[in-house]
Amino acid sequence: MITSDYTPILNKAVSELSESQSYDGLFHQYKDGEPLPSAASLRRIVELAREILFPGYFGNSTIHRRTLSYHIGVNVEELFRLLTEQIQAGLCFGIENALSDEMSDAPLCKASAKNIAAQFISRLPEIRRVLATDVEAAYYGDPAATCFGEIICCYPIIRALTNYRIAHELHTLNVPLIPRIITEMAHSETGIDIHPGAKIGSHFTIDHGTGVVIGATCIIGNNVKLYQGVTLGAKSFPLDEHGNPIKGIPRHPILEDDVIVYSNATILGRITIGRGATIGGNIWVTESVPAGARIVQRKG
Amino acid sequence: MITSDYTPILNKAVSELSESQSYDGLFHQYKDGEPLPSAASLRRIVELAREILFPGYFGNSTIHRRTLSYHIGVNVEELFRLLTEQIQAGLCFGIENALSDEMSDAPLCKASAKNIAAQFISRLPEIRRVLATDVEAAYYGDPAATCFGEIICCYPIIRALTNYRIAHELHTLNVPLIPRIITEMAHSETGIDIHPGAKIGSHFTIDHGTGVVIGATCIIGNNVKLYQGVTLGAKSFPLDEHGNPIKGIPRHPILEDDVIVYSNATILGRITIGRGATIGGNIWVTESVPAGARIVQRKG
Amino acid sequence: MITSDYTPILNKAVSELSESQSYDGLFHQYKDGEPLPSAASLRRIVELAREILFPGYFGNSTIHRRTLSYHIGVNVEELFRLLTEQIQAGLCFGIENALSDEMSDAPLCKASAKNIAAQFISRLPEIRRVLATDVEAAYYGDPAATCFGEIICCYPIIRALTNYRIAHELHTLNVPLIPRIITEMAHSETGIDIHPGAKIGSHFTIDHGTGVVIGATCIIGNNVKLYQGVTLGAKSFPLDEHGNPIKGIPRHPILEDDVIVYSNATILGRITIGRGATIGGNIWVTESVPAGARIVQRKG
Amino acid sequence: MITSDYTPILNKAVSELSESQSYDGLFHQYKDGEPLPSAASLRRIVELAREILFPGYFGNSTIHRRTLSYHIGVNVEELFRLLTEQIQAGLCFGIENALSDEMSDAPLCKASAKNIAAQFISRLPEIRRVLATDVEAAYYGDPAATCFGEIICCYPIIRALTNYRIAHELHTLNVPLIPRIITEMAHSETGIDIHPGAKIGSHFTIDHGTGVVIGATCIIGNNVKLYQGVTLGAKSFPLDEHGNPIKGIPRHPILEDDVIVYSNATILGRITIGRGATIGGNIWVTESVPAGARIVQRKG
Amino acid sequence: MITSDYTPILNKAVSELSESQSYDGLFHQYKDGEPLPSAASLRRIVELAREILFPGYFGNSTIHRRTLSYHIGVNVEELFRLLTEQIQAGLCFGIENALSDEMSDAPLCKASAKNIAAQFISRLPEIRRVLATDVEAAYYGDPAATCFGEIICCYPIIRALTNYRIAHELHTLNVPLIPRIITEMAHSETGIDIHPGAKIGSHFTIDHGTGVVIGATCIIGNNVKLYQGVTLGAKSFPLDEHGNPIKGIPRHPILEDDVIVYSNATILGRITIGRGATIGGNIWVTESVPAGARIVQRKG
Amino acid sequence: MITSDYTPILNKAVSELSESQSYDGLFHQYKDGEPLPSAASLRRIVELAREILFPGYFGNSTIHRRTLSYHIGVNVEELFRLLTEQIQAGLCFGIENALSDEMSDAPLCKASAKNIAAQFISRLPEIRRVLATDVEAAYYGDPAATCFGEIICCYPIIRALTNYRIAHELHTLNVPLIPRIITEMAHSETGIDIHPGAKIGSHFTIDHGTGVVIGATCIIGNNVKLYQGVTLGAKSFPLDEHGNPIKGIPRHPILEDDVIVYSNATILGRITIGRGATIGGNIWVTESVPAGARIVQRKG
Repeated sequence: MITSDYTPILNKAVSELSESQSYDGLFHQYKDGEPLPSAASLRRIVELAREILFPGYFGNSTIHRRTLSYHIGVNVEELFRLLTEQIQAGLCFGIENALSDEMSDAPLCKASAKNIAAQFISRLPEIRRVLATDVEAAYYGDPAATCFGEIICCYPIIRALTNYRIAHELHTLNVPLIPRIITEMAHSETGIDIHPGAKIGSHFTIDHGTGVVIGATCIIGNNVKLYQGVTLGAKSFPLDEHGNPIKGIPRHPILEDDVIVYSNATILGRITIGRGATIGGNIWVTESVPAGARIVQRKG
Repeated sequence: MITSDYTPILNKAVSELSESQSYDGLFHQYKDGEPLPSAASLRRIVELAREILFPGYFGNSTIHRRTLSYHIGVNVEELFRLLTEQIQAGLCFGIENALSDEMSDAPLCKASAKNIAAQFISRLPEIRRVLATDVEAAYYGDPAATCFGEIICCYPIIRALTNYRIAHELHTLNVPLIPRIITEMAHSETGIDIHPGAKIGSHFTIDHGTGVVIGATCIIGNNVKLYQGVTLGAKSFPLDEHGNPIKGIPRHPILEDDVIVYSNATILGRITIGRGATIGGNIWVTESVPAGARIVQRKG
Repeated sequence: MITSDYTPILNKAVSELSESQSYDGLFHQYKDGEPLPSAASLRRIVELAREILFPGYFGNSTIHRRTLSYHIGVNVEELFRLLTEQIQAGLCFGIENALSDEMSDAPLCKASAKNIAAQFISRLPEIRRVLATDVEAAYYGDPAATCFGEIICCYPIIRALTNYRIAHELHTLNVPLIPRIITEMAHSETGIDIHPGAKIGSHFTIDHGTGVVIGATCIIGNNVKLYQGVTLGAKSFPLDEHGNPIKGIPRHPILEDDVIVYSNATILGRITIGRGATIGGNIWVTESVPAGARIVQRKG
Repeated sequence: MITSDYTPILNKAVSELSESQSYDGLFHQYKDGEPLPSAASLRRIVELAREILFPGYFGNSTIHRRTLSYHIGVNVEELFRLLTEQIQAGLCFGIENALSDEMSDAPLCKASAKNIAAQFISRLPEIRRVLATDVEAAYYGDPAATCFGEIICCYPIIRALTNYRIAHELHTLNVPLIPRIITEMAHSETGIDIHPGAKIGSHFTIDHGTGVVIGATCIIGNNVKLYQGVTLGAKSFPLDEHGNPIKGIPRHPILEDDVIVYSNATILGRITIGRGATIGGNIWVTESVPAGARIVQRKG
Repeated sequence: MITSDYTPILNKAVSELSESQSYDGLFHQYKDGEPLPSAASLRRIVELAREILFPGYFGNSTIHRRTLSYHIGVNVEELFRLLTEQIQAGLCFGIENALSDEMSDAPLCKASAKNIAAQFISRLPEIRRVLATDVEAAYYGDPAATCFGEIICCYPIIRALTNYRIAHELHTLNVPLIPRIITEMAHSETGIDIHPGAKIGSHFTIDHGTGVVIGATCIIGNNVKLYQGVTLGAKSFPLDEHGNPIKGIPRHPILEDDVIVYSNATILGRITIGRGATIGGNIWVTESVPAGARIVQRKG
Repeated sequence: MITSDYTPILNKAVSELSESQSYDGLFHQYKDGEPLPSAASLRRIVELAREILFPGYFGNSTIHRRTLSYHIGVNVEELFRLLTEQIQAGLCFGIENALSDEMSDAPLCKASAKNIAAQFISRLPEIRRVLATDVEAAYYGDPAATCFGEIICCYPIIRALTNYRIAHELHTLNVPLIPRIITEMAHSETGIDIHPGAKIGSHFTIDHGTGVVIGATCIIGNNVKLYQGVTLGAKSFPLDEHGNPIKGIPRHPILEDDVIVYSNATILGRITIGRGATIGGNIWVTESVPAGARIVQRKG
């Protein structure tokens, strides 16, 4: 297909694109035995977790109470194997990026990865327990919902929260990179962007969901409900002496139990929305709100 | 991969996750011959409908006027078969969830499913007629559009409306669960969330679309245009004696013919936006608006 | 599966759906050797471009500095071949739709297509140079980011900008249809809708991104940052004597260097946001804003 | 692609090929709910059986003694489901072909199918026991073999015998059509054609295997070894009054224990090769051979 | 993965393998628009032909008498398109190899290819008619056969003859390369090697089949039956002045009507086996045999 | 699907099949990081080798003289990586089976595996050189062959020899198991069974090929031609004190240069067929044959 006319143009492009200064910072140098985390593998990991957490709804839909433990056993084994590999890749990647090259040590990463993967799996029963409360919250909060099964099968909030709750556990276990990839998968599918660092209580729900943003240092109590387009963001962030944002400072809101935030409201900064408060739609809130308060937009 | 160190941890997790109280409400018990609706099958059903409705644009792009009826014939046959299976699965699921177990009756479901699938197919010509008006509305409403083909190929509103118009017919035929799964597919792909219960007239369009929400009891006239981020939602909903939302009450807006709603406006409750009214962007509307009115945000 | 009862219904549907007036405007008539642009092929084209631009992050993650040029060479060759095919399909489609049928000339389209594809490839080094500035901007603008690799792997803005910058070059080279399909792919994945006609400078970033709309005639300077839900749209558009919108008129905002626009702000019409200005969240702006100004919503 | 010149030719072919007399005897008329046995499904069934019989060699190669029962459990469940479906399809097919149409009764077929599938599964431990003797025979009979694992992984005789022993059990359970499809799969892969009706003892092996034929009424004792190209066939078969071969008459050889048959020998008719006899290569044998005899070709 | 130790070795291999004299005669130089025939495409072509010839047995097993013509229509259209492409590739390949480079002319090849593809399709009804006689012959010749359906589904002779009869028509239409690829596919699957140039009458069958060879200039009458391992080959072939075999000389046997050849018999040279003759197994025949004769091996 | 009636039967089967004595010798116990050689990976390895050896015929058919080295480079890199993995798996497997468990040492295996893979790659130019002579031999030996391309594309002998020549190099490098899997792949596809241990000179060909067997200790000179069904086998093999065959003893024939062996001939034992000898079809040869001799079957 490359005819004589275009060969020089293409060859010039190839050689420019192969010059190392041209890909500085954009190239991931492979080191032996340390591939990048794999999107396909992480997708399978999330699928496996979903099959374990909601048996019969995801994965094999013909499983049976009597044979359930066979399926859980096989899925847990595969999850452990894949997760170990991916955590190892994430740890290597993290070390490589955060520190100097010499400290990367594949066998050490592998031992840690196994340990972390096992810990993660030991928390699956608790993750399931909390997700069950989220399913309830979605059901009782939506007059259009017809049954729990509908919520589990097709409500975007359940997909987003499953990914978030998995990612949050991995984040808590100090796994780099992977938690963020997992929540971004849900962001792409649902338009709901929850940072894995956020802390979210039980019975949480978001209606419709598209456009919701929940920042890395948010703390959300139990029984909180958001609507589409809500932002729980940072107002501004202090810069260090080089003018770069300082990492790790609490900068996102705290929502106490029983808060409701209506669509497209924007809540910014390390403020507290008190227990039972209601924030109206399309509102911009940058100061704390007392418990039980009801903040609404002035009429359009 | 499971080494001796981690086996007890994993086995403990397997046994906890296999205890029946731990998956209460999160488990779908398979009954012989009644699998859940299948996402893959529903995706194929939507594809087939798209191939039938927009011949040459979707599916086989080399079809020809002279051979068109062969393709329509084959596609209708496959659509009938898959739809019958999925409607049957949906009916079984619906019965199982809504009522007592004893009433589930696979052969009855199958006979109903065939009947419904045939009725749905008989409405495809009408669905195509209305979608043609939507394509026109998108084309004449966007100066950046270059031809009908571009609209059909890549405008998210056409994808969202195709799924909605299919789902709405199935909803009208009382098929449970499946219509919602079909509109959620489009929600995930386009960020446009239209409940299958909403009633929408001809020549409807949404520009850009991300973040739009159209609730279950909305009624939208002909020739209506929305922009991205518009919510047509419920203001609040009455609770029954148990504190649960009462289902089925009209609670979303009515938009009469020729209404335009600009980006990120929020219209809530069973109010009426009168014929030809214009609602400005970023506005919160909770009371009816007379025909021809023009509501805008006060200056920022 | 089609039993005698339903055959007449289905056959009636088939014949109605095969009548040519019923698919008028919704049918793409195949002409010999001129298929439609293929979504699968365009997806592969974007993947290949991504593999070339960010080596090691996309595609083969085990490539090496020493073997990089082999991979770039193979990828450029495949990209040239696929792009030539798709541009040819796009040109044929464009001619067919814009003008009369007679002018479509496949060999001419093919020669042009090769020429355009080669020109596009010669611009890849420049596209990479600008994307590197976008990665920097995303990294320095987000305290939650841990390294460049995380930005490249999973930040939606990089996915959206990669598609946009590819599509914009093709748009500049007068390729019809295809640029729009490429940006709509990113719109579906990220909720960020950038028209390929927009002009965007270096060091551009969007945080979170869902719901952002950037119109076809926007001009954006260097070092601009947007947040989720921002609209850079048209206020209204003049109609021609037939009541149709006039195409090609500048109608979207100009954002000068160093502008920041917070979440859910809406900026409409051919106005200018001056250098270094800040636009607060949830605001509706329809008039120009001077350099350095800071526009915010009045308190909720 | 179909241009005007060729349309009449193609349409003529379509209509000739659609005339019912032209496909008489070559058409399989679908009846509701009774599809043909599926080659893909049968391939999966054989794979599952192989995974169960030789754990760790086929299917998941990372399984572990401690987790083996999970995998066996999941595989047995899937095997039971697929086998029930395929046996049902085979029974329907068999009834339809053997008898009149009215006797076909899908629910009855389904009940029988489940019963047969369960019986088949209950015989898997015995099938494994016999296959273990075949692996031994192959190992001890070939100086080039290095370990049991090599035999199991890549010797064609093990593949052929696994399919045969599965098919023979299904044949014994009176399942029509499916046993033959399963042995023909192995025939295609290995060139070894064993009819599922043949009876074969333990410690059976065939070296190289290509071209071996073992007819439907063969009886083979324990510890028999064949080489490539051996035929155990029928000499002739009596015709009925219509000149058609009479079915079911014993017409193939009996090989007693410890017989060896060298390459390309042909043994025809209901004769007996006595215990411990050796048949030389390239020989044509049509009369019984006493125990311990050694029959060889005269020198070339 | 390529570590510093091995890079020089690998690079040396790459450069040796890229030297043009090293791949002389083993390289296929791509010319614009003229790819090689594609094995995947030819496999699909054979599948389509099989679906058309044996409706309901191959491809969609749920088709129905009433919808059969839709399926035949769609399949014929796809077959015409793929066959045109592959014949064009074959013609270009043939020209390139047989003659000088200058004579290759893609548009001419394409016009011829369409013409040939249409002629091939017009012969499908006749191919079906003859294959029906082959199915009968296989059925009436095998006491183990239970019905026509079993023959069509799983007898290797039907697979081999379908490929041969397709390939022979293409050979007769002077298509290079492709007929041989099609018969070699069947050779690989069945062990039956029939050259596409052979001429074979109706009611032909081969029992078991593995190892059968039928040479390029064979002529076989009606109602002939072969067994496994039969060779119909050339005895020797005259050389030209350069010592190369002269092409195109009749050099394989003629078998008249009603001949039977038993297993592993070898018949060589341009001899004639007269009507109704029987050739015993494991025999070497190099001289003509009169009609009705019965040739057998002397006793072993 | 598992109804109450059959659960006990299935559960009984599961538990019997999970008892360790039942799978003794049939189970491959996974050890951490040491999976079995993978059939899919080995298939890809053979494909890659074929793409490198015959550029343009296999793999990307649109490659070009000017871009060939990019493709060779990418393919060699992938081949090195996959081959290292598979050789490592083979070495681990070999150690585990041949010796005691304690000696298996994954890192050592990996270092050896890399070394062997690099050596193998350094021999690819020589493998190509010899295969080129085989292509010539096939072409000049078959009057039906029309060009080199046809031989490379579809003659089974080239497929069989490519696998054999690859496998033989790996065998020479002392890789266990893998060489045999590679030749068995070709055996399954072509019916030609060449043991990787055999030594075969240049300009080797086999016509048709089905049923040919070439044993592990065969030595074949240059310019030898075989026909279908030829066996070069062992006559008998000495047993050790336990009655098991002694491994590694030369026991297959030596064929000197320029030998021809016609179809279905069987040559057994460590005998020598002298230079230029011809062995007729269907013959059984167990004694050495002098140079230039011509051995034929007595008339049938």
